[in-house]
Order: sequence, then structure tokens, then C-alpha cells
Amino acid sequence: MNESLTEKQKMLSGLPYIGWDPEILKDRKHAKDLCHRFNQCHPNHYKKRNNILAELVNLQGRAHIEPNFWVDYGYNISLGANFYANHNLTILDVCTVTIGQNVFCGPNVTITGATHPLDPVARRETESGEPITIGNDVWIGAGAIILPGVTVGDGVTIGAGSIVTKDVPDRVVVVGNPARVMKAL
Amino acid sequence: MNESLTEKQKMLSGLPYIGWDPEILKDRKHAKDLCHRFNQCHPNHYKKRNNILAELVNLQGRAHIEPNFWVDYGYNISLGANFYANHNLTILDVCTVTIGQNVFCGPNVTITGATHPLDPVARRETESGEPITIGNDVWIGAGAIILPGVTVGDGVTIGAGSIVTKDVPDRVVVVGNPARVMKAL
Amino acid sequence: MNESLTEKQKMLSGLPYIGWDPEILKDRKHAKDLCHRFNQCHPNHYKKRNNILAELVNLQGRAHIEPNFWVDYGYNISLGANFYANHNLTILDVCTVTIGQNVFCGPNVTITGATHPLDPVARRETESGEPITIGNDVWIGAGAIILPGVTVGDGVTIGAGSIVTKDVPDRVVVVGNPARVMKAL
Repeated sequence: MNESLTEKQKMLSGLPYIGWDPEILKDRKHAKDLCHRFNQCHPNHYKKRNNILAELVNLQGRAHIEPNFWVDYGYNISLGANFYANHNLTILDVCTVTIGQNVFCGPNVTITGATHPLDPVARRETESGEPITIGNDVWIGAGAIILPGVTVGDGVTIGAGSIVTKDVPDRVVVVGNPARVMKAL
Repeated sequence: MNESLTEKQKMLSGLPYIGWDPEILKDRKHAKDLCHRFNQCHPNHYKKRNNILAELVNLQGRAHIEPNFWVDYGYNISLGANFYANHNLTILDVCTVTIGQNVFCGPNVTITGATHPLDPVARRETESGEPITIGNDVWIGAGAIILPGVTVGDGVTIGAGSIVTKDVPDRVVVVGNPARVMKAL
Repeated sequence: MNESLTEKQKMLSGLPYIGWDPEILKDRKHAKDLCHRFNQCHPNHYKKRNNILAELVNLQGRAHIEPNFWVDYGYNISLGANFYANHNLTILDVCTVTIGQNVFCGPNVTITGATHPLDPVARRETESGEPITIGNDVWIGAGAIILPGVTVGDGVTIGAGSIVTKDVPDRVVVVGNPARVMKAL
């Protein structure tokens, strides 16, 4: 069945796909060009930076992202209003990464929907993605990493350096590697 | 009482403040401009880089910082003599960040004095800071994160990837997430 | 005995050495220049980027490294065929860092062969290195840190945010801070 799908269709469906497929590579090059221009842009040229950002990702409202900012494709990312990310945010959006309103990221945050097979031989050929959803009013602390397939609820605080491997319910504070609930609001 | 203080005065006093206040934003833009110029500068143009650094932070002596280096304001940072930081040091200096002599940072270190309310609604409006003090002869390992309000003693080693959430006494090695004393010298 | 060795010879032998020695500094400046050019280069100019990479490190075959990429010297690094690194890979190669075939790094990975004395006074003067070896078919997850002297076997998966402090056998998954075996294949 899957043989009738293009590699890009497989990628967007969460099926194993070949990352160096020409159609996918073209999309990635487009995003890397925009990221490069965004990162090279003077950080105070807000208008120019916002124009690039609006071309790169789906903006639902105002957003401010400090350089450097890197994504894989951009078109899979939706950022809710009042999004703020400190320096060095990386989002690997091989599938949808949906972020709510009033979300703040500390520096050096990684949000990765991209994964690889654990089997070393299979890993040589394909990769795949699992969607990530982050609710409203979430604060993602410095250096935190959010892993493929994770859903984070509303009003959550993710402590600095947390490795978020599974879903996080609403209105809790999670910390640690792996991240665990430390406190409910 | 606090209503008579400007947002900048609140920030510098550790009180909740509005980060997009025009006076504060002006200061942040000045720092981001200097950081951008520092990071774009050829890494071997030591003199030019040092001149930018001397304008950005309070240098107590020689310092060498590999690119990229990002701060919020710079004027709240004091670096003791013989400071060395490997690539990608980020210091969020919404309040004083005071670093002693002979301090070495590995790559990807974050020192953040900036914090936000845990309450999701309050978080939309304000943020605040807690000062950080790092003693003399401290080695901060790769990827370590030092959190708001922390004081690190003299002669300390902070292991790679440590998340330092509370004060560290003199002459110990701390490791882990959260960081704990592993060894006393 | 060691007094007859140059600082560079000491560095390459794993003996304590002085990092600001002129001969060593010259090598480091050469590498930093290449890294700067690599990082400033448009990410889609594959040919230009590969030429810089081939001058910087020892390539055993095709390699793709997303910006930014930083090393200390480069000549101590050997990358096996089909090496891929996502954004912000840092390799501190004060001694040999040997990486096998089909190795993938997530974003923000640090591989550091560089270490410092725990004694604060000794630390002011010298540093040293311990070689790192990474096998074939290894996936190093986002934000992982591999520490001096570590050998990683073939077919290994290193979970995101892992701090790898000791050797890892073939065909296992390690996670955590410090990294521990979670699963054998």
C-alpha cells in the first residue's frame, strides 16, 4: 500500500521515509535557507525577521524568536499567539508540531518530532516522525528536550534540563531526566 | 510602593517586571546588537572581539569567550580575570551575575538569573530575576545549567550536563539533574 | 622526561599541557577560521561546505553536518562514511576522536575529549585529553554529551539528553544522567 505514497507523503503520515528523497530535500533546503537568513539577520530588525518567520512557519499571532533558530521544514510548525523563544531553539518538524498561546521557551530548547529505528541496520535507510502538541501557557525551561509523540497540557512548567519522554497533564511542573511530575498547581 | 518604580528599577531589584517595557527593551536591543557583532566577528580577531566584550559586560581582567555568546543586558554581568568560555555560552542577566577569577565554562553552558511565575496567568504578564554568584576557580562542565538565585563556592567543579538548582559549597564536585555533591576535595 | 616534549606533543599524548602555547594556539586558530567559514556559509552550498569540512577533519566518506559546527583542532577527528550531524555539534578534539560509519547525531550534541584537573590550583595551568571512540551505526540523541575517554560500541542508541560518562557495549540503548543501559537489542 505504502508503495503508492511518495516519500514526502510517508513522512507527513508518520511512516518510515527516506530523508534524502529529492522532493523532501527541496523542502528542507527551502527551510534551511530561510533559517540561515533569519539567523544572519540583525536581531533588532524585527520587521525583517518577522517576515522571514511568517514565511517559514504558521504563525497564529505575534511571535518573537531569538537567534539561532533552526527547523527542518517549517510548514509543519504552528505557533500560537505570544510565542517567545530564547536563543537556540531547534524544532525538528518531520511531522506536525503544534504549539499553543503564550508559550515561552528558555535558551537551548529542542523540540524533536524526528526519530530513527533502534535497529542499526534499519536505521541506515529510514526515519520517521511522531507529532508533538504543546498546550497554552506553557513555560519550557532552558535546555529542555521534548521528544517525539509527546503532548504537553495547558499551564505546564517544564524545568530546565528536563527530558520530556511522555505526555504531561495540565497544570503541573515536571523536572528531571526523564521528566516526572514534581508538583501540581 | 512599587508603583513608583520604573520597570527597569523593578527588574534590577528582583521584583516582577514587564519585559517589553520600552526602557528595558532599549537596553536589551543594545546588548543584542553587541552580541550579534561579537558572534559575527571572525573568531581570531581577538582585539576587535575584546573591545566588543568590554563594552558589553564588566571585565575584571582578561577574558576569552568563543562564539556564540548571548546575554540579555550585559551590564549586570561581572567576569573575573582569566575567564574562559567555550562555544555557546548564554547568560540571562536580568539581575546581577557575578563570576570570580579563573572560571572556565565548557561548551553550551547556560547561566540564567531569569525566572517566570509558575502560575500560568501571572506568567503572561511579568517575569523576575534572582542574582547568581560564582566563586573563584570554578569549572562549569559542558551543557551545565545554573539556575536563578544560585551561589557557587570557590574551587568547585560542576559536572557536564548538571542542572544546578541550589547553592554549592566550596571545593566540591557536583553532578546530575538535579546536581548533588559527588565528592569533596 | 616530559620536559623534552613540546606542549603540542604533550597534548597529543594525553599529558597535561598548556592550552595557550603558541604552536597549539596557531593550530586552534586555523581550525576556528575553518569553522567560522563553514558556519557562515549558506547551508545549501553543499560543495563549498564539504570542501571546508574536508580541510578541517579526516573524512572517510560522505558527511553532512548542519551549522553550527565547532571543533578545537579538527585534525584529531576522523568521521566514518555517512556521518550526519544535526545543528550545533561541538567536538573538543584535544586528542583523537574516532567515529565509525553510519553515525547520526541529533541537534546540540557535545563530544568532548578535553578535561581539566579537579584541583582548582592545578586547573589554572594545564588541561589534558582522553581519546574518544564511537563505533559504527550509532545514533546519538539530541543534547547528549559524550565525555573524555569513553568508547561507544557498534549499533548503540544514546538517548536524548544522556550524559555518557563510561564505556558503552555494542547494541544497547543507554539513557539518563549518568547514562545507563536501558535495553539490549
